[in-house]
Amino acid sequence: MTKPIGGAGLRGQSAGETALCTVGKTGSGLTYRGYDIAVLAEKAEFEEVAFLLLYGHLPNQAELSAYKTKLKGMRTLPDALKVVLEQIPADAHPMDVMRTGCSMLGNLETEQDFAEQHQHIDRMLAVFPGLINYWYNFSHHGKRVEVDTDADSIAEQFLWTLHDSKPDPLHVKVMHASLILYAEHEFNASTFTARVCASTLSDVHSCVTGAIGSLRGPLHGGANEAAMAMIENWQSADEAETAIMGMLERKEKIMGFGHAIYRESDPRNAIIKAWSQKLAQQVGDTHLYAVSERVEAVMWREKKLFCNADFFHASAYHFMGIPTKLFTPIFVCSRVSGWTAHVIEQRNNNRIIRPSADYTGPETAEWVAIEDRP
Amino acid sequence: MTKPIGGAGLRGQSAGETALCTVGKTGSGLTYRGYDIAVLAEKAEFEEVAFLLLYGHLPNQAELSAYKTKLKGMRTLPDALKVVLEQIPADAHPMDVMRTGCSMLGNLETEQDFAEQHQHIDRMLAVFPGLINYWYNFSHHGKRVEVDTDADSIAEQFLWTLHDSKPDPLHVKVMHASLILYAEHEFNASTFTARVCASTLSDVHSCVTGAIGSLRGPLHGGANEAAMAMIENWQSADEAETAIMGMLERKEKIMGFGHAIYRESDPRNAIIKAWSQKLAQQVGDTHLYAVSERVEAVMWREKKLFCNADFFHASAYHFMGIPTKLFTPIFVCSRVSGWTAHVIEQRNNNRIIRPSADYTGPETAEWVAIEDRP
Repeated sequence: MTKPIGGAGLRGQSAGETALCTVGKTGSGLTYRGYDIAVLAEKAEFEEVAFLLLYGHLPNQAELSAYKTKLKGMRTLPDALKVVLEQIPADAHPMDVMRTGCSMLGNLETEQDFAEQHQHIDRMLAVFPGLINYWYNFSHHGKRVEVDTDADSIAEQFLWTLHDSKPDPLHVKVMHASLILYAEHEFNASTFTARVCASTLSDVHSCVTGAIGSLRGPLHGGANEAAMAMIENWQSADEAETAIMGMLERKEKIMGFGHAIYRESDPRNAIIKAWSQKLAQQVGDTHLYAVSERVEAVMWREKKLFCNADFFHASAYHFMGIPTKLFTPIFVCSRVSGWTAHVIEQRNNNRIIRPSADYTGPETAEWVAIEDRP
Repeated sequence: MTKPIGGAGLRGQSAGETALCTVGKTGSGLTYRGYDIAVLAEKAEFEEVAFLLLYGHLPNQAELSAYKTKLKGMRTLPDALKVVLEQIPADAHPMDVMRTGCSMLGNLETEQDFAEQHQHIDRMLAVFPGLINYWYNFSHHGKRVEVDTDADSIAEQFLWTLHDSKPDPLHVKVMHASLILYAEHEFNASTFTARVCASTLSDVHSCVTGAIGSLRGPLHGGANEAAMAMIENWQSADEAETAIMGMLERKEKIMGFGHAIYRESDPRNAIIKAWSQKLAQQVGDTHLYAVSERVEAVMWREKKLFCNADFFHASAYHFMGIPTKLFTPIFVCSRVSGWTAHVIEQRNNNRIIRPSADYTGPETAEWVAIEDRP
């Protein structure tokens, strides 16, 4: 017997336990292992947060230094993976590149035993920024970018391998905050994909490959890209307001607002918004930040809809010279920490995730010989 | 508020609706769109069943001929995909090869709009047998096998591209039955993975890539490979009985028996068992079929455990000269029909699959400066 569910899409149904994250609980909008997201984003490096998620506690200085040194030593792209990336055309979807790159890595460095899981997880964290930027630079500029850089962190590594030069320290700081904000979010669809895969006791590359595929969907990742595509059309706040009012009147979907779980605000918005403002000042932005602020104000005034984490990420990334099509791959470089923390958790207390379905088809159907079919 | 679930792993919980399949209902163990599996496996070709799942009805002769002609015209491997497959070493996990090949195909032939879904699904059905056998022959025998064969069906195409020659008609018939038996099985973990991915409105290659990753897990696919690894150790039925009795005494897991849903028998077993017996006679088998029958008898006598679909698949595939490591990729070549039928169904009535979790971590955690951490 199957029990009817409360809502479609398993909404409001518990599909398991986690000690990693709370989303939308009163008093603190988002916590990782009990730590408030605002504190983590202000004070931590991304590697500290990844360590917290993956190893269960905040690292002390010796642990953090050792972890960063370890990750720094794991950036090299295998030659066979470079060959694969060079086969992928410039007009491919960058999330398909991430998915294929992760999957290929699993062929070359296969997880043979769960005792190896941390090694493979750390390797993915270390290699993903270079992986996507190697493809991007090769396919778009014909350049084989060096991924074995002197970058101190994953945040710096992303910007360094994208631009093939040591990035501005402010940009590195913003990337740390951004990677922290996107690192983990409970049983969202991509994380749940990773857990379903993990529940068959499959390898960690399969889990992450599947999660990337789910994050690719427009109902999940990609809202910051859509927000960017929208705001870059407008040259002033007034122009933006006119356009938004028209979109609302035509009932068009405006990306980067509202959230399936949060009801009053997204605790990540204020953080990335402040960074976007700092970046706007640094680069001498004349209108994009003002446009973004006005869109936020109009959406609140007209619809009581608040910005989610994605909206001010669009301008922030743009100010750092990041091409829009790489916004969601950055999400992958961050969320792989949360996905894999969930894989570890699922493995530690596993039962295969195998729900039932309500059958809506014909009770029975009689075979008809092919020559007698209509 | 989250409601507690009946069992871990969403067991017995409905996670949605389907008109594709019933599993374990009284009277008929397994139906595809209402048709009993025994009738389909006896009377249909695999392409008829794939058409039934994907297009909603059994094809008439003109539809079936047109469908097979279409699939036959979609077998060519893109050059870039061949390059990728040639980069994957012989000791890679064949399911990682399938996962990567499918993902790479998505880069080269990206689903830009759901209106294209049938085109991409049929392409995957057509290309997967040649894809895995191209890699197998290249990595294991240094041979670039021709995948544009004259094979009449997917069943024949698999055997033809594996052995690089036109296969025996009996073997083709067995492959049709095998592909039909494995085509669809409701909300199993890999199919559910595909549906979670589809629920984000991601592309069909992401859905199938994720599903392959889940099927790879030892709790899901791979039982026929494990059964083969076991039975090939024994040279006679008596030796098998002694060994099995010892394994039972030591409480070792014996693969290919019992099922999470079926309680009395697996309706697929009698079908593949009969084919295995025919193949044993054809190839002049001296002991493997007898060993298999004895294991079945001992498991029932000692434990009241019945063979599932996987157990006699092991000997049947072996008699056709299929290497054990390719058993689970055959499962993919079949199940891609069921996975993608579920993707279509999910898209037709979609809500993002985003469950909740029971939080078991600390309520709050106070930030400690890194120099003060233990």
